[in-house]
Amino acid sequence: MTKTNPGRFFEDYEVGQTIRHAVPRTLAEGERALYHALYPARHALYSSDEFAISCGLDGSPMDDLLAFHTVFGKTVPDVSLNAVANLGYAQGRWLQPVWPGDTLRAESQVIGLKQNSNGQSGVVWVRTQGLNQVDDVVLDYVRWVMVRKRDPQAPAPDAVVPDLAAVVDPSDLVVPEGLDFAEYDFELAGEPHRLDDYQVGERIDHVDGVTVEEAEHMLATRLWQNTAKVHFDATNRPDGRRLIYGGHVISLARALSFNGLANAQMIVALNAGAHANPCFAGSTVRAWSEVLDKAPTAAPGVGAIRLRLVATTGDSGSFALRGDDGRYRQDVLLDLDYWALMPV
Amino acid sequence: MTKTNPGRFFEDYEVGQTIRHAVPRTLAEGERALYHALYPARHALYSSDEFAISCGLDGSPMDDLLAFHTVFGKTVPDVSLNAVANLGYAQGRWLQPVWPGDTLRAESQVIGLKQNSNGQSGVVWVRTQGLNQVDDVVLDYVRWVMVRKRDPQAPAPDAVVPDLAAVVDPSDLVVPEGLDFAEYDFELAGEPHRLDDYQVGERIDHVDGVTVEEAEHMLATRLWQNTAKVHFDATNRPDGRRLIYGGHVISLARALSFNGLANAQMIVALNAGAHANPCFAGSTVRAWSEVLDKAPTAAPGVGAIRLRLVATTGDSGSFALRGDDGRYRQDVLLDLDYWALMPV
Amino acid sequence: MTKTNPGRFFEDYEVGQTIRHAVPRTLAEGERALYHALYPARHALYSSDEFAISCGLDGSPMDDLLAFHTVFGKTVPDVSLNAVANLGYAQGRWLQPVWPGDTLRAESQVIGLKQNSNGQSGVVWVRTQGLNQVDDVVLDYVRWVMVRKRDPQAPAPDAVVPDLAAVVDPSDLVVPEGLDFAEYDFELAGEPHRLDDYQVGERIDHVDGVTVEEAEHMLATRLWQNTAKVHFDATNRPDGRRLIYGGHVISLARALSFNGLANAQMIVALNAGAHANPCFAGSTVRAWSEVLDKAPTAAPGVGAIRLRLVATTGDSGSFALRGDDGRYRQDVLLDLDYWALMPV
Repeated sequence: MTKTNPGRFFEDYEVGQTIRHAVPRTLAEGERALYHALYPARHALYSSDEFAISCGLDGSPMDDLLAFHTVFGKTVPDVSLNAVANLGYAQGRWLQPVWPGDTLRAESQVIGLKQNSNGQSGVVWVRTQGLNQVDDVVLDYVRWVMVRKRDPQAPAPDAVVPDLAAVVDPSDLVVPEGLDFAEYDFELAGEPHRLDDYQVGERIDHVDGVTVEEAEHMLATRLWQNTAKVHFDATNRPDGRRLIYGGHVISLARALSFNGLANAQMIVALNAGAHANPCFAGSTVRAWSEVLDKAPTAAPGVGAIRLRLVATTGDSGSFALRGDDGRYRQDVLLDLDYWALMPV
Repeated sequence: MTKTNPGRFFEDYEVGQTIRHAVPRTLAEGERALYHALYPARHALYSSDEFAISCGLDGSPMDDLLAFHTVFGKTVPDVSLNAVANLGYAQGRWLQPVWPGDTLRAESQVIGLKQNSNGQSGVVWVRTQGLNQVDDVVLDYVRWVMVRKRDPQAPAPDAVVPDLAAVVDPSDLVVPEGLDFAEYDFELAGEPHRLDDYQVGERIDHVDGVTVEEAEHMLATRLWQNTAKVHFDATNRPDGRRLIYGGHVISLARALSFNGLANAQMIVALNAGAHANPCFAGSTVRAWSEVLDKAPTAAPGVGAIRLRLVATTGDSGSFALRGDDGRYRQDVLLDLDYWALMPV
Repeated sequence: MTKTNPGRFFEDYEVGQTIRHAVPRTLAEGERALYHALYPARHALYSSDEFAISCGLDGSPMDDLLAFHTVFGKTVPDVSLNAVANLGYAQGRWLQPVWPGDTLRAESQVIGLKQNSNGQSGVVWVRTQGLNQVDDVVLDYVRWVMVRKRDPQAPAPDAVVPDLAAVVDPSDLVVPEGLDFAEYDFELAGEPHRLDDYQVGERIDHVDGVTVEEAEHMLATRLWQNTAKVHFDATNRPDGRRLIYGGHVISLARALSFNGLANAQMIVALNAGAHANPCFAGSTVRAWSEVLDKAPTAAPGVGAIRLRLVATTGDSGSFALRGDDGRYRQDVLLDLDYWALMPV
């Protein structure tokens, strides 16, 4: 019998099952530096220990998306090795910052299963938690994927479709302990715009573009220990192209959004996300955002802004998202819905 | 009104104006490692804590050019986003090493302005300081750039052209506190040549070449948080090429100069610099140096050597710099004039 | 006279001679992170401080191959700058882990010399030691290379061919102090297979493949301060290709071998190694392993497994190594023979 990991097929999942994912990972200064080399990240709270201290923290935490990618990467060998498609995210919350030196591991619980009508595959819903070395949950999100069946003749399980909120309620957002934007230095942060300056419905063209190279997305995806073949092996697809990890596009777009949203400092919730089209090396990625909602928090000077972040290979200034048929345009890569913390 | 940064145009500058640049940055072990991955850097003082300690320091400082690029990167959104050309550097001095864990920020003062006769653009001179977390100035230099006018009809300001020294006087060089080359280990440093072995006028072919890739210069330039579009966006120029940040070429050439100048350990002054021609991925960069001057310092065993460092895509052994017309040859990328510290 | 390093030629070596290699190097968190970005490394002991602590260590050591590459890189300017071929390795042992913050340097002793019958070149055998900042030997190995003569007319030295063991005797393996696999967490490590589950003669297809980019192998090879021109300069070979450092292929294959050998945690000996064919960017590297031997150790729960690790650009599932002529197949890149520590 083979000793390599064949991945799980649809019939290997059961509702209620808990999967303890392998290979914990210590994140430190090196990962922080690499994140800044891989993405044009400039949010001051993650760039400067001094700035973070002036906001009431003990120093710069690891980028929220770095924590997300690390936890996500752990789940790949158990959840998406035989996945046909990554269908969605919901109810994601960052519950605690990850600090340099922290070690993360991940656990997932199967919360839903539904076989497709073709009998070839099914949808699996998992709720994943990222835990640090003292078993505090630092991140919690739901993800669903379409997974192939090993045997198309295997019987379908009872369908269980979880009831997922479309948006994390602002009252459920967790503000990191000590965070205080009362003395926030807008000049040093890079832009004067505070929460009050943004209007619901406002759209922001982030203007800049980044042309992506193979070496870059592979360095990133390996750093998160994501093992999906499609990202690394040019012989895996008939067209000889390597599919860029969707999370790489999320981080690129978020970093580009600095230009116009420099003060949307910390990501605290992931409401929804769609990888609308695949991204390949050679593409020039641009981004635009739309303000979806605003909410207060109990922390001094800290408000929450709900944003739609769109990555596109087209014109970010056209704010185009869907065609007349209601489907995502071909040039849209990502449609992400998240909450961030911003000085009021 | 747009919330993104349009950059400053010529008429937005005033002599005497101080600009506090955004996004402070903490530099640590990760940036040090990346510097060694991005450039073939081998100067022992920056490679080994033990070697640096044997030279009287507390450990390896961050590479002097890493500090320079970080400070320079901060100035880009305010100084060179609408620049047509980076014209020169003068009076640059490193005043204190940057240590792992230090946080840098930057401030610039406008010290000169002169509109071009075509009325379309003008030259802006700024004096930039890099400051650490206790507000010590670690780096100080003058740079001038040609910047577009927003409105060609706007009136010209009174011309103010600063009087800049061609060379930093050796008596103004700052030797890092504690630096002592009395017990310098030449074998471990990699070459036996001391200051006395170099003659003014001597030229050194650094022999090695590095063929540059897109992924590398973008990783580097992002790491310095330099946001200039031309480095990242292949759709920005009609020819679809990304312009390599001039500082990337400086670091490449300086690292290549180890072979022949292994003991030119610390850069303490930037006298002048010209980015003679643009550099693109696929080029093979070589370097040669010329000894311009030598000077003593007050520190034990420490002398100063003034060097011309030339980066070229041509034959570094021909020492060719200018054509018959007195202009830089097409294969010359960089002509840099600096002071370094070397055991006497 | 030139100040650059021309490298040593065959007639520059003498049996008994000791070479103290230049440029010591401090390795820390940054190098650890980069190792994980450059290779799909997932062995838990090197990924997680917590996992390493649960195995009796003080934290995660630097990857054993990272230590090897760093020591090897130091030897290049003195041993292989004029090498025609890297012929083999023997009797390699890791004697102590390298911890973040350690500074490595290297020394080599010439232990054999034999001129080739053509008089143009000869074989040089060196025994290299890597030492940390307190002069403990962390790594010790023999390597032999074919080196060009400066002057084909120079007389041949007396031939001295060292007597090298084909395999490190398992009783000579050094288990890191404190290592204890008695409470080993197989689930967190990623696979359930213990030493008892592997049979001598068993072969494992590691399944995954990585397509290699120029930027990646250059970043890695620079990080080890390996200065061999062939890796960096596309103008160096008539075909314009850059030869990938053989050690890059070793690290790639070792990382790929996680899938099937996740519990072969620490490399403790290098018995032999052949770089069977050159590797170039664009190749997709795959790997397979063969179990050659097993042995107990004195440490609690710790056994040793002797493995053949083969990297190939062909089908790793065919386990093809040599053609009918007994020579390595054209698609085989690497044939490495090593001992690793594994829970019994």
